[in-house]
Amino acid sequence: MSKPLILVTNDDGINSKGIKLLTEIVSELGEVLVVAPDSPQSGMGHAITVGNTLRLTKTKVFNGINSYQCSGTPVDCVKLAKHYILKERKPDLLVSGINHGANTSISVVYSGTMAAALEAAIDDIPAIGFSLCDYSPNAEFMHVSEYVESISTRVLDKGIPQGVSLNVNFPASKDAPIKGVKVCRQARAKWKEAFDERIDPYGERYFWMAGDFINQDGGEDNDVWAISNGYASVVPTQFDLTSHAAIQEVEDMLFS
Amino acid sequence: MSKPLILVTNDDGINSKGIKLLTEIVSELGEVLVVAPDSPQSGMGHAITVGNTLRLTKTKVFNGINSYQCSGTPVDCVKLAKHYILKERKPDLLVSGINHGANTSISVVYSGTMAAALEAAIDDIPAIGFSLCDYSPNAEFMHVSEYVESISTRVLDKGIPQGVSLNVNFPASKDAPIKGVKVCRQARAKWKEAFDERIDPYGERYFWMAGDFINQDGGEDNDVWAISNGYASVVPTQFDLTSHAAIQEVEDMLFS
Repeated sequence: MSKPLILVTNDDGINSKGIKLLTEIVSELGEVLVVAPDSPQSGMGHAITVGNTLRLTKTKVFNGINSYQCSGTPVDCVKLAKHYILKERKPDLLVSGINHGANTSISVVYSGTMAAALEAAIDDIPAIGFSLCDYSPNAEFMHVSEYVESISTRVLDKGIPQGVSLNVNFPASKDAPIKGVKVCRQARAKWKEAFDERIDPYGERYFWMAGDFINQDGGEDNDVWAISNGYASVVPTQFDLTSHAAIQEVEDMLFS
Repeated sequence: MSKPLILVTNDDGINSKGIKLLTEIVSELGEVLVVAPDSPQSGMGHAITVGNTLRLTKTKVFNGINSYQCSGTPVDCVKLAKHYILKERKPDLLVSGINHGANTSISVVYSGTMAAALEAAIDDIPAIGFSLCDYSPNAEFMHVSEYVESISTRVLDKGIPQGVSLNVNFPASKDAPIKGVKVCRQARAKWKEAFDERIDPYGERYFWMAGDFINQDGGEDNDVWAISNGYASVVPTQFDLTSHAAIQEVEDMLFS
């Protein structure tokens, strides 16, 4: 039997520490193709490049592994892999990350890491986004290796429900050892931005976006709780944005 | 009683035809603030600007209406409006669009128009994204005016279920008159990209992303069906990406 084909991407860029470790781990599990952004793409969500051109270049960042860097977003990378590089051959698994920084709760909607996983799920490719709750470029990842390998292996063996990909977050290493895995929902939370207003050398105003994370969720069945309590969180995440529960309610409330 | 405050944005940019009409319509319903991108931002999904600076400039694009153009994405515009321009005053309604092009089905995940609406919903601001299924910059919008006004008025009067915003799509005018409104789910569909490969004047390869829309949904309770049959579609759309139905299944399948 041929080895499974595993597609690797991320949103921190092909030179980040997280994707290096992820590629090393999954190269033990199958044949690997890396297609990742050539520069950091954090916060790009499900953005695609439609009004501009894309570049795709073979790289030797990873020893002996078929790899490309792309000028576009994480979702562009997945689309180029699916429909240009691989064409009719479908990957058996996509892994994205390991992201430097949390993608729990509402952060999932801004996350290029998870958008790449959802983009794979649209084509029925089992997919996992891995994130570490530590933004540092030099973050310590070693405590997550066995979890990344174990979860990837399980998904390769057993698949994943259709239309769903896994959003996996790990506590930072200072909170290690990880106590186990909690399969749960995204916490209800939001960001409250504080715009840092500055004046450029030409006298014009500009802003940096910054913000505080506000957890509005008192439950214990969500990803923020899991991380705060030393567990890895696994949220089944979907690209169907329909609120099925609200269809009848909106009909009755607004259109009857 | 003071007039309701209505925030207007889009993803085609502040100079597009669709936002001009939308601003005219809602300025009859309340006090209007426009904060929109200074250039086209189609396909930006829920992207935010985190690694770069933002500009925000007062404009006179709309006569007598408080309006700003922003160098960032549609979601940046909403964040600047919420947390910088308005601060503690919360809009009573956000309207986004009218988009030049369909945001039905899977296109919702790539849509800056709908991301802006979801970003408002995160802060419990009732929000509607309006899109016309016609990509032309000179698209004919007049057949949708009464629907935009009527749906906006209803949401101002009656609100919207928490955590949900409305994804409203209209058939192109050649299919008019619109037969009515269908409240429904997003169709199951995907894009199959064809990358147009070219060589630049320096001998280097580059790509344009193009693609075909593939409808995989035979149902009649979805937005693609509604539009194809001459109705406006209204999909209650949410920022909670958790597949609640899959939590137990993923637990049993992978972690038991």
